[in-house]
Amino acid sequence: MPALESWNDGVARKAIVEFVELTVDDGVPVEERVAVFDNDGTLWCEKPMPFQLDFILRRLTEMASADPALRDRQPWKSAYERDHGWFGRLLDEHYAGDDTNVRTFAGGVLAAYRGMSVDDFETRSDEFLRSALHPTLGRPYLQCVYAPMIELLGYLEDNGFTNYIASGGGRDFMRPISQEVYGIPRERVIGSASTLEYVADGDGGTVRHVAKADYLDDGPQKPVRIWSRIGRRPVLAAGNSNGDIPMLDFSQRADRPHLRLLVLHDDAEREFSYTRGSEDALLRAEACGWTTVSMRSDWARVF
Amino acid sequence: MPALESWNDGVARKAIVEFVELTVDDGVPVEERVAVFDNDGTLWCEKPMPFQLDFILRRLTEMASADPALRDRQPWKSAYERDHGWFGRLLDEHYAGDDTNVRTFAGGVLAAYRGMSVDDFETRSDEFLRSALHPTLGRPYLQCVYAPMIELLGYLEDNGFTNYIASGGGRDFMRPISQEVYGIPRERVIGSASTLEYVADGDGGTVRHVAKADYLDDGPQKPVRIWSRIGRRPVLAAGNSNGDIPMLDFSQRADRPHLRLLVLHDDAEREFSYTRGSEDALLRAEACGWTTVSMRSDWARVF
Repeated sequence: MPALESWNDGVARKAIVEFVELTVDDGVPVEERVAVFDNDGTLWCEKPMPFQLDFILRRLTEMASADPALRDRQPWKSAYERDHGWFGRLLDEHYAGDDTNVRTFAGGVLAAYRGMSVDDFETRSDEFLRSALHPTLGRPYLQCVYAPMIELLGYLEDNGFTNYIASGGGRDFMRPISQEVYGIPRERVIGSASTLEYVADGDGGTVRHVAKADYLDDGPQKPVRIWSRIGRRPVLAAGNSNGDIPMLDFSQRADRPHLRLLVLHDDAEREFSYTRGSEDALLRAEACGWTTVSMRSDWARVF
Repeated sequence: MPALESWNDGVARKAIVEFVELTVDDGVPVEERVAVFDNDGTLWCEKPMPFQLDFILRRLTEMASADPALRDRQPWKSAYERDHGWFGRLLDEHYAGDDTNVRTFAGGVLAAYRGMSVDDFETRSDEFLRSALHPTLGRPYLQCVYAPMIELLGYLEDNGFTNYIASGGGRDFMRPISQEVYGIPRERVIGSASTLEYVADGDGGTVRHVAKADYLDDGPQKPVRIWSRIGRRPVLAAGNSNGDIPMLDFSQRADRPHLRLLVLHDDAEREFSYTRGSEDALLRAEACGWTTVSMRSDWARVF
């Protein structure tokens, strides 16, 4: 019996178990048993805002506290004044085709970590994730991880799979906790990145942030980054939003059993209920035979 | 006794064994036993030209054979006419500060793989590496790998290390043979890359080459790429040229036993003898206590 205690009997659980058993029975080589998981909204919560946005707002507030001149400039102004509406509107404006404030925000984020070493960044991320509380669920962020997905990661690993995170979130933001929380070591975290540079100092040198975007690991970049990092086409992909469509597409295999999972947030009581940003993915799930995972029906517990 | 039969007793062998034993005795956690290896000139030959340059010249010749108009344009003209001197001069010109022809060549390389899927590219690379002969050593390319380094990779792996290739050569060029030749799986090959894009087709889609450079994994990019891929500072780095200096620098650790190896090509009889492009690295080896590996004195056999 697979260790999927938090999964109710149903289509999703059945699809997972059948896929894993077929993979093992077919003798798919262990090195090809590659599974990729989106993070925000797939392995942990993303509402009311992604954890990393909270992390960034705190950094912007810290900067504005230290430098009053920043308090009149966006995005520091809204962060300092806790005007979270300004950040919420970014996405509306983006959907409406206006990225003016998105660019203002992105410029602030890049400035926020300019010159910071990857080690300092990691210390900050690690401390934040281990101490901050989710704003509405009343529990620490690291306890906002979905228990059924943790069980799935373990079940896959027990069957010779290698799990990767392929997230739109920051790679270096997730790395300090990925092993402990997901059993996924830091070298298997794929995510967005800023441009880095190496500065020698005669004593091992430092890798540090340059105020320049590198890539956003979302949409069609996900298969590109998965290929770049792993060099293989996955047999399992799990996501929850439109940005995961290409990754789920890419995991379609003519030659191997394969499984595409789409987590549906339909549980207002235990988590959140929303489909915004997932409309296209839900249509694709129906059209392409992806397996939809209903949080409400398929999960006996969420956390 | 370590399985380093092709290594003569000497400073280099002693330094390797002492480092590995110290790492194990100190109980350095297995996940931190990360070793990174340059490829061209460190794990396999790079003279009279890198294997991948031969691969590219054949592709340029193939294009010029199919399209006569290309035969009047560089770099196709020199490839088609087998004027290897033109390619040799690129490096001289580069050192003299003139990159005009380097850019012409780079433009040709990007055009040579424009629109090609990573799968097709890999098939070509795989076939080339398994069939082509080294132009002067009279042996297949895949037998131009240094036997002592293969033993070193195995010795490290036997002691809980994880080996990575961190090469200036193309990542996707090396991947099809890395497991078989080095015991290093494709996901642990770090190297230069061109820009890739994902094209959906309703049937799994394709990752393919865009005619745009991404990054050259050389010099200060090496630590950046090592961090990006692994998220750790290595404890062992091996290289042979000036482009490896930052990678070797980056592997200096105050907190862990560490080892930096610099392969010196001083064996005109069995391989090649040259220091060009390694002058600074040799000076740094002396100044920083890196371990120089003399092919002539330290290796009982080369291949």
